[in-house]
Amino acid sequence: MTEGGWTFAKVSSEWQPVCMDALPRIPGRPCSMASALQLVGERWSLLTIREILLGNRRFDEIARNTGAPRDRIAARLKALQSAGVVERRQYQDRPARFEYFLTPAGRELQPVLQALMLWGDRWARDDRPLVLEHDCGHELNPAWVCRHCGREIHGRDLTQKVQNPDWTLAGPATSE
Amino acid sequence: MTEGGWTFAKVSSEWQPVCMDALPRIPGRPCSMASALQLVGERWSLLTIREILLGNRRFDEIARNTGAPRDRIAARLKALQSAGVVERRQYQDRPARFEYFLTPAGRELQPVLQALMLWGDRWARDDRPLVLEHDCGHELNPAWVCRHCGREIHGRDLTQKVQNPDWTLAGPATSE
Repeated sequence: MTEGGWTFAKVSSEWQPVCMDALPRIPGRPCSMASALQLVGERWSLLTIREILLGNRRFDEIARNTGAPRDRIAARLKALQSAGVVERRQYQDRPARFEYFLTPAGRELQPVLQALMLWGDRWARDDRPLVLEHDCGHELNPAWVCRHCGREIHGRDLTQKVQNPDWTLAGPATSE
Repeated sequence: MTEGGWTFAKVSSEWQPVCMDALPRIPGRPCSMASALQLVGERWSLLTIREILLGNRRFDEIARNTGAPRDRIAARLKALQSAGVVERRQYQDRPARFEYFLTPAGRELQPVLQALMLWGDRWARDDRPLVLEHDCGHELNPAWVCRHCGREIHGRDLTQKVQNPDWTLAGPATSE
């Protein structure tokens, strides 16, 4: 949803503007993944979102549990608010204290975080520090499934179609 | 798979050692997501993997299409090789030239990349630079589904169980 360079993300019954123009232009291939990474791809950003998902909403908790330098977490929380992924709510007056919540955009990052966690379980660690259990009673073992045909999605079954006329799968159209 | 601090990732019929000890220790909560991010979480790493998935296997193509500084891509490719995510194969003798391929661990990052792309399509861009088509004939519209019960996964249906005795969901066990 754009209006003169501003993107609006609907956040708890009010519209919070996100000025994409304020971010540095992304080099290389126009790509939603690159844009997503620009908003949430920094390591401390994703770990901040993890802590909020685990129910740790206060700055001190987020800083302690991520292990990030406090100034980095402060900067990341500010950036995530500008990106419309996190919102801050005051829970105390004097002194003013705040808690951080995920917006709908933030909550929709859940498959990204889960996919990363499952990959890490399999390829980056020998232990399993956290196990997710689905309410069907089984340990979480998810798959990406096509909503149309119901089959599990494999890379070999996908065709990539570049929509931007200036690019092909191989690179910039002009370099062909 | 570990043997004295070395993790072995099976890579095209040979074992490629990945020394996790060589990476800086991760601060904060023990977490597979944090470990995954340590291996592949840098923005240029994921965009490098994107290009290899799109079939662009040569250094010059990867550098051009990601738009990253060439020295950053060189460093990322080296790190991804050490992590057992990418492997390099020589395709020419004089001068020696190489192509980069994803290992099984690298190919298993596809759900992460897809989740990021879908999130970016929805929340970070107004255009759709790349559309994925499933071989059932429809544009990719995937659901994140439990393999056991077949239902779509929502955060509210998950219970998190911390396995590490030194931590709880709230933080380090000692701080309780």
